[in-house]
Amino acid sequence: MSDQPFKSIGIVGAGNMGTMMAFGFSEHGVNVSLWDVQSSNVDEAIDMTKQEDPKRLKGKINGFHDIHEFASSDEQTPEGHRFFIFSITHGGPADSVLEKMQDDLKKGDIIIDGGNENYRNTERRQKELEAKGISWIGAGVSGGYQSARRGPSLSLGGDPKAIDMILPLLQQFAAKDRRSGEPCVGNMGPGGAGHYVKMVHNGIENGMLSSICEAWGVLHHGLGKSYDEIGKIFERWNAEGELKNTYLIQIGSEICQRKKTAHGDKKGEAASTSGGYVLDDVLDKVVQDDDDTEGTLYWAVMEAADRHVSAPTIATGQYLRVASGNRGQRQRVAQKLTIPPPTKINGLKDEQAFVEDLRRAVYVSFLCTFCQGLELIARGSRDEKWNVNLGDCMKIWRAGCIIQTEYISDLLMPAVTSDARIMNIKLIDEVAADLNKHYDALKSTVLKGTEANSYIPSLSASLEYLKYEAAKMLPTQFMEAELDFFGAHNYDRPGVRGEDPGKVSKGTHHYEWRPA
Amino acid sequence: MSDQPFKSIGIVGAGNMGTMMAFGFSEHGVNVSLWDVQSSNVDEAIDMTKQEDPKRLKGKINGFHDIHEFASSDEQTPEGHRFFIFSITHGGPADSVLEKMQDDLKKGDIIIDGGNENYRNTERRQKELEAKGISWIGAGVSGGYQSARRGPSLSLGGDPKAIDMILPLLQQFAAKDRRSGEPCVGNMGPGGAGHYVKMVHNGIENGMLSSICEAWGVLHHGLGKSYDEIGKIFERWNAEGELKNTYLIQIGSEICQRKKTAHGDKKGEAASTSGGYVLDDVLDKVVQDDDDTEGTLYWAVMEAADRHVSAPTIATGQYLRVASGNRGQRQRVAQKLTIPPPTKINGLKDEQAFVEDLRRAVYVSFLCTFCQGLELIARGSRDEKWNVNLGDCMKIWRAGCIIQTEYISDLLMPAVTSDARIMNIKLIDEVAADLNKHYDALKSTVLKGTEANSYIPSLSASLEYLKYEAAKMLPTQFMEAELDFFGAHNYDRPGVRGEDPGKVSKGTHHYEWRPA
Repeated sequence: MSDQPFKSIGIVGAGNMGTMMAFGFSEHGVNVSLWDVQSSNVDEAIDMTKQEDPKRLKGKINGFHDIHEFASSDEQTPEGHRFFIFSITHGGPADSVLEKMQDDLKKGDIIIDGGNENYRNTERRQKELEAKGISWIGAGVSGGYQSARRGPSLSLGGDPKAIDMILPLLQQFAAKDRRSGEPCVGNMGPGGAGHYVKMVHNGIENGMLSSICEAWGVLHHGLGKSYDEIGKIFERWNAEGELKNTYLIQIGSEICQRKKTAHGDKKGEAASTSGGYVLDDVLDKVVQDDDDTEGTLYWAVMEAADRHVSAPTIATGQYLRVASGNRGQRQRVAQKLTIPPPTKINGLKDEQAFVEDLRRAVYVSFLCTFCQGLELIARGSRDEKWNVNLGDCMKIWRAGCIIQTEYISDLLMPAVTSDARIMNIKLIDEVAADLNKHYDALKSTVLKGTEANSYIPSLSASLEYLKYEAAKMLPTQFMEAELDFFGAHNYDRPGVRGEDPGKVSKGTHHYEWRPA
Repeated sequence: MSDQPFKSIGIVGAGNMGTMMAFGFSEHGVNVSLWDVQSSNVDEAIDMTKQEDPKRLKGKINGFHDIHEFASSDEQTPEGHRFFIFSITHGGPADSVLEKMQDDLKKGDIIIDGGNENYRNTERRQKELEAKGISWIGAGVSGGYQSARRGPSLSLGGDPKAIDMILPLLQQFAAKDRRSGEPCVGNMGPGGAGHYVKMVHNGIENGMLSSICEAWGVLHHGLGKSYDEIGKIFERWNAEGELKNTYLIQIGSEICQRKKTAHGDKKGEAASTSGGYVLDDVLDKVVQDDDDTEGTLYWAVMEAADRHVSAPTIATGQYLRVASGNRGQRQRVAQKLTIPPPTKINGLKDEQAFVEDLRRAVYVSFLCTFCQGLELIARGSRDEKWNVNLGDCMKIWRAGCIIQTEYISDLLMPAVTSDARIMNIKLIDEVAADLNKHYDALKSTVLKGTEANSYIPSLSASLEYLKYEAAKMLPTQFMEAELDFFGAHNYDRPGVRGEDPGKVSKGTHHYEWRPA
């Protein structure tokens, strides 16, 4: 630990993420102080340490019920810095803990907020604490609770000097790129840049989750595949080609093949003596987004709207979640509406070729989602003057995080790393080539899925996205005329220099279609 | 004018809307004072009055360059009230004019803000001015500049006593329902309710605009119809059936058939001696939303995300506009991507039947858009405790406004008027029956459009919306398992009492798919 200055850290929040981070830092030889607003969470975490191999937990993990004792237990470096990590729910809870700790914090303290916080809240706290000489760093922590221990992906944003001080420890802690060994942590930029990047990560995550769950539905309901068979298909997808080493495909293959056992998991969950799949126990009810416990997904949709970035695959993912989560209301609607449920996909001459098309469709929908997300970061960064390098985003997303996918990472990284001003990802040669190459597979999948009443909102949103983003002439010619008719919006004319393409600003001509 | 107390009003803003409102109020015998930050706008408006039949303009229209003279020219009622209308750009400009007028305003003044303002700004100004005894009323004014003169649709929100005072005059001024003669103006609720309703109106407007412009593209590029032929088809659609008396269809039929003339319009626009359509002059570049001159559309998308309402048709309309507006970048993407452009729709045995399906598809996409918009109002109203009656919205949308469409209005009004607590429009019997009836036409249109590479983002978004909103079992079962795998999100189990359907809140079970 000699090459980084912190002998101890203090972690606020002993939930899944906070506890696993405590274990993770301990394994790197750092002493950890742990506090939670609910003392029982702390006690549980400390109980868990007793079940661990003491050789693995090199640093001491101490639990605290008193926040002041907790704060003062965190050791200062010789230069007068302490390091705290907040791992709690965004919004009010973080403010409330900060309020409780206000007399315990002192100049030189560095706090990273590892929660999924809104970047505007992050920037507000940065300003408030800066006056006291305290550095508040917004940090996206991705990878779920397993990665929180084994090494997550971290996107930092805030005071660069403070980030430089904590980086050496975080580089030890973070996930490592399998190929280069480089740590998946980086300084994304000042202010709320780190949390912004994490917000977009979660938006991309959901576009990917939607696309893959739609493919799962097509395989299950459209082709009649068993969970086991789907698991094997996902295994193959994850082994080679455009979807290789894609975390969500990889865990999907495990999920599909997981059988119930007589004893279930270590807490007895999903125990059964009559067999079956664990997945049979899972209802189609994804309450997060609607329950508001996590904001990143819908903030990403709001940000895309606010900054005028087309993000249909990401947004569709939210809409599907909302419909999914309110299962009670959906069942009532289902009784009123007689929309036919998914049927078998008929008339397939070559089922293998269809599954291959589906794989390519999922890939191109993933790629569309990355385009949308990276373009949102580029626009946000330009507007906020953060100067985020998209190559840094792709770098920290190579391992540890939920959206890691090797092929897309390899495809994008060189171009986005070298061209700092890129605003439209579809202009990258390699991206364009792949979008062209797989358009037919996406189209064919959407056609067959639509025919069979499959649920394919994200796949079809990606298909339409590709079409209108690359259209030489859109039917919006007619929309523009309607807007000019009643709103005097003013249009530009085709083929007229200075007007076509012209700027993104009010046109030159109004025709009086109907006098007032 | 004896039944309403205001002999004069003051209008701030002499743009299209403000000037036409000045004319409209004058025609109802009210004297109008007009001011604009740009004096030339005022002068132009006054010039225009000279070209009008003096018998039509019953009230005097006086232009002012000085804001203080303007303010003091507006006459008080015996009870001590003056009436001002702001018709200026949202955000900064309204604040700046209010600042300029602050010494001129006095207790008892009633100001309606007829701009497309964000409801949060409206509520901020209401609070600031309430302290001075001034009533600030947020008012959606819909119908474009023609309606601004002939009678717009008005959604008011704010202090109910002030609204009661201005209602009699606004009832004379507003558009009248052709059938009942009732004026299309109403008190939507307290605070920002009026502007919220207008924001959603504009969101619905764009979902409709997208759907109809996609149909226009299918007719033009897919069937090879001339503009004239499309105009005749829209005429028939507007004459009877589910699309009868739909403003956007009606003006669409005019637009398609409008030929260039030697002299063009009154300002010489679209003059040509070689014929052609005016529509040929219009580029496919809809810059509003991306140029930010108008916020309502993207605010609606943001609000839907923030309040967890699925609004894919409305959002897709924004994404299509964004792609449309940045034509320069789109042309660059179009050179990289070889996505095939729309082709003829081949193999149609019965073209008439296809066009009829297309008509029904447009209708059901309109209906989906209304469901999304009304559900957003219902959710906003519940969250903000505004108590908006959706029947009042449908009532003011019967005439004067851009989204007026007779059949949907007739279909929805009885149910939404009588059931104040309705949160899901698809649960209304008549709505459900029509969604069921026309699902096949929408599906068939999307299939044929997808096959021919037509641009159909809103139509396909509506199709998917219907499917997932009415799904008994969604593939999100798999998404929920993935979220539980890495995020310990916790799931509920199918068929288990208290869990299925259960509440929209965190589930009961976590399975440890992989230990940390």
